[in-house]
Amino acid sequence: MPIYNPPLRDMKFVMQEMLNVGQLTEYEKYAEADTETLDAILEESAKFASEVLTPLNVVGDHEGCTRNEDGSVTMPTGFTEAYHQVVAGGMMGLSESPEYGGMGMPSIWSTATGEMQSAANMAFAMYPGLTGSAAKAIGIGGTDEQKKTYLPKMTAGTWTGTMNLTEPHCGTDLGLLKTKAVPQADGSYKLTGQKIFISAGEHDMAENIVHLVLARIEGAPAGVKGISLFIVPKFKLDKDENPAERNAVSCGSIEEKMGIHGNCTCVMNYDDAEGYLLGEENKGLRVMFVMMNEARLGVGMQGLGQSEVAYQNAVLYAQDRLQGRSLTGPKNEAGPADPLIVHPDVRRMLMETRAFNEGARALIYWATMLEDLEGLHPDEKFREKCDDYLGLLTPVIKGYLTDKAMLTTLDCQQIFGGHGFIEEWGMSQFVRDMRIALIYEGANGVQALDLVGRKLARKGGRALMSLNGEIDTFLGENSDNENLSEFMDGLKTSKQKLTEGTMWLMQNGMTNPDNAGAGSTDYMHMMGLTTLAYMWAKMALVAQAAIDAGSNDEFYTNKIITGRYFVLRMLPMMDAHLAKIKTGAEPLMALEAAAF
Amino acid sequence: MPIYNPPLRDMKFVMQEMLNVGQLTEYEKYAEADTETLDAILEESAKFASEVLTPLNVVGDHEGCTRNEDGSVTMPTGFTEAYHQVVAGGMMGLSESPEYGGMGMPSIWSTATGEMQSAANMAFAMYPGLTGSAAKAIGIGGTDEQKKTYLPKMTAGTWTGTMNLTEPHCGTDLGLLKTKAVPQADGSYKLTGQKIFISAGEHDMAENIVHLVLARIEGAPAGVKGISLFIVPKFKLDKDENPAERNAVSCGSIEEKMGIHGNCTCVMNYDDAEGYLLGEENKGLRVMFVMMNEARLGVGMQGLGQSEVAYQNAVLYAQDRLQGRSLTGPKNEAGPADPLIVHPDVRRMLMETRAFNEGARALIYWATMLEDLEGLHPDEKFREKCDDYLGLLTPVIKGYLTDKAMLTTLDCQQIFGGHGFIEEWGMSQFVRDMRIALIYEGANGVQALDLVGRKLARKGGRALMSLNGEIDTFLGENSDNENLSEFMDGLKTSKQKLTEGTMWLMQNGMTNPDNAGAGSTDYMHMMGLTTLAYMWAKMALVAQAAIDAGSNDEFYTNKIITGRYFVLRMLPMMDAHLAKIKTGAEPLMALEAAAF
Repeated sequence: MPIYNPPLRDMKFVMQEMLNVGQLTEYEKYAEADTETLDAILEESAKFASEVLTPLNVVGDHEGCTRNEDGSVTMPTGFTEAYHQVVAGGMMGLSESPEYGGMGMPSIWSTATGEMQSAANMAFAMYPGLTGSAAKAIGIGGTDEQKKTYLPKMTAGTWTGTMNLTEPHCGTDLGLLKTKAVPQADGSYKLTGQKIFISAGEHDMAENIVHLVLARIEGAPAGVKGISLFIVPKFKLDKDENPAERNAVSCGSIEEKMGIHGNCTCVMNYDDAEGYLLGEENKGLRVMFVMMNEARLGVGMQGLGQSEVAYQNAVLYAQDRLQGRSLTGPKNEAGPADPLIVHPDVRRMLMETRAFNEGARALIYWATMLEDLEGLHPDEKFREKCDDYLGLLTPVIKGYLTDKAMLTTLDCQQIFGGHGFIEEWGMSQFVRDMRIALIYEGANGVQALDLVGRKLARKGGRALMSLNGEIDTFLGENSDNENLSEFMDGLKTSKQKLTEGTMWLMQNGMTNPDNAGAGSTDYMHMMGLTTLAYMWAKMALVAQAAIDAGSNDEFYTNKIITGRYFVLRMLPMMDAHLAKIKTGAEPLMALEAAAF
Repeated sequence: MPIYNPPLRDMKFVMQEMLNVGQLTEYEKYAEADTETLDAILEESAKFASEVLTPLNVVGDHEGCTRNEDGSVTMPTGFTEAYHQVVAGGMMGLSESPEYGGMGMPSIWSTATGEMQSAANMAFAMYPGLTGSAAKAIGIGGTDEQKKTYLPKMTAGTWTGTMNLTEPHCGTDLGLLKTKAVPQADGSYKLTGQKIFISAGEHDMAENIVHLVLARIEGAPAGVKGISLFIVPKFKLDKDENPAERNAVSCGSIEEKMGIHGNCTCVMNYDDAEGYLLGEENKGLRVMFVMMNEARLGVGMQGLGQSEVAYQNAVLYAQDRLQGRSLTGPKNEAGPADPLIVHPDVRRMLMETRAFNEGARALIYWATMLEDLEGLHPDEKFREKCDDYLGLLTPVIKGYLTDKAMLTTLDCQQIFGGHGFIEEWGMSQFVRDMRIALIYEGANGVQALDLVGRKLARKGGRALMSLNGEIDTFLGENSDNENLSEFMDGLKTSKQKLTEGTMWLMQNGMTNPDNAGAGSTDYMHMMGLTTLAYMWAKMALVAQAAIDAGSNDEFYTNKIITGRYFVLRMLPMMDAHLAKIKTGAEPLMALEAAAF
């Protein structure tokens, strides 16, 4: 049975020592977000993740969700009880507004608890996760009345939420969607159409399910300009706003899929279902995209979560399993063989995963901290910077982190040999579950195009210029730190190569946009590596300062060892990506489409 | 439902135009191996693969193999009938010796038919595949009597074979194995122990199953020096050599695993089972390893097979699915959107897979051709070279090709977006099935160590020197071919970088063997890329010659376009691998084992 121990020490290092999360208490909004409360919440959340959610992970995979003949869905054993614990503990409202019953703590706090839930049980964590996303959309686009009706229930978790975008013929290209909404005399709409791949679409854990549905109002313009967003509750509400009559929305079937079996991914049928406009007519995508950007950070976190839990189990196996002898002579002479961890190639896979995970954690937490500061900081320029960075980092966190987490999770599975391929050890599930993270909320190729086609160019390239300036300042301040020269050199070189890639794309993407498209994924990886190099330089700085101040905590020396692996062993990929970008589109586009 | 159309044109190009397989008819042994016969066999095999095996692939995945209460195993619907077609068609004996009922055709012929079977239905293809491997072992180590008893049945396929190596506590490190063999008065042995992960361990498709089992004769030395190999038939033979009394070997359970559900992977229990020594006492590994080297080429082929079938389905989807518009303006103006294939990032994934597949096919077929020539060529030096190359290429074909095929298969799945994650389209199965190829027959890390630790150093490094010499000669002969300068430059540069990596490993592996271990996987990838660069240069040469001779067949221009992608877009990885190798072991080994 796989284990999961939330890496509290590392989480706190990133939050407190690197990002100084305590600075948030200086703002009135977060005056109560002190260290003691944070510690208590992290401890409690860790206990829940490791003791309740972790054992249920394999149960969810094995049993899956069952659609009954009447269209209702039965959850895997234990899921409903665990979900009720989430509700009873108020866990879903941690960073939600007190106005609707939330605790009002910083987003970065729920990033940490979210990482734990996602690592422990990705399929389960999607139920509260999607509810939070849907609530966010209502918070952005809803009327005061809508907020009052839905947000308290969704903040508590007694009602859950879903996002209904995809249809059989349209995924990325939402302009093609056909679900129609017919206005009714009372101001409501009747929705008709079919949505597919709807995560958490139907279940019996909550009193109601709030579906957010993209649809086209009769007579609306074609394409993306005619798409509106609707609230369609599973149960319509009576005059006291309690769930009453069943709405004409139902689960037609549950998709059979590669992983996340514990999450019911539904085909949802809307047959004149009653819905209520959320936000303005024909401007549904605006609301959806604000919310989706946040969801994308969550998907990056799912990648980290699976990579982390896979790593922890691979470490235990590598320390435990005796097989072969060290190339430099026996390390466990009394035993029949040495543990796997003596073998450099096993170390390579473990160190790659470890260095990636710790860097990814810093990057995701930093982004969420920027989110928290964006709404608070007194300096407009600073708030603008937060927004710029978030725009740039979102596709990188979604796309690069999940691309790379797929590989590290596969590596961790590989360490188990044949035992990794059988389901008994749980490593297969981590790989199968995490596979979806590269696909949903915008496939990673779409993220790369968003980065290269939109985010780089936005406001004259201000975001990247600003980030480059920040890195230059950082390097200027720390270039004389002899203990950290590898980190600073690595960052400096990465930044130079990224700049070279940026210039190439700008110059050659103008003449032929396919040149930008052809280099987009490689560029996204370069941006990922460079931002991780920045995170690692910052973490090394903090760790070195602690060592210089006399700390004997091995955490700090290990942090630097892990970071050195990143710099020496992972940054060399920069050259390969740059070389590929510079070939342009021609080698990809030369073959006639029909000749494939 | 996924399709598979065996790429006959490309197979024939490699066999006939690049490798000149017709030269084998000059040897008496293969005098009848003419083009007409080859074409007929390829056509027939293609029909069987696409029409019979392909539709059964998803059936095998869905139904799996069922162990009944009495320990018997029921196969997925249709598997037994298909297997009987294999037997009736004499397909398993294609390259086996006529002495035992085989057709006696070159190995490279059955490599091509094997690729088809494996691509169409990897789980199914393992039953004949393992039977061939087991027969090979009996051919190498068996007495004349054993050969006469077993080989005709296994060549026909009426009996199948298995390999029993792994035990719960020992996989790679066979020295730890515990299964014991007690000599009996009649010269036979009684075997007792448990074997796990035994592919094709039990089923009802054949009259008998011939288990080849590694075990330790009572009193034998500890470690690898005390391991013997035994033949343990499922049914003992009566005096007419017909299967009669049930032997004390049974399937204890079927493993639940990530993929290849159509192959029954068994826990096999031996309880005083009657066995017969195969080869010499305590020298069982010698026979096993000769056979395993061939099996490793087969695993590389499995990687290619899944990558090929995934590619074919991804191409269809990318040509068919309308989503979004080309960055350079609509390409399907009349339609609601352009097909996916207009997008450069989709092209990137397709071209990467295509360029890899075609290169991998050439490499595997070349290796098998070397195998054929090794036993025939009149020049001892040439035969020696064949053996040298095979030693070098085997870990590369097993390790590098499956590492890379995993990534291309994932890319092909990615092209389907959410449809790739649900089982309906079959892309998930290709990924899940192929995952095992990186693990079994020696995990890829073990292949890398075999390459760096054994194959490079063997006979003073003769193999690599010889290959380098051959490449230099090739470059010397073709460096003035202006049309192919990219190919020749790519090969030359790769060879130089590989040499640099080799030198580094030799110099630094002496002082600390962990330096060699730490760079082994990266080195294996460098060797893979360099040998593919050689294959591509050779293929481009043939294709260009055809064009120069006035051919209008687009196959040749497309071949060169695909090869250019390989040179420009895949060879840049060489630098990254070299840089990683040169960091040595220190960044991997610095962390204390307990600190992970």
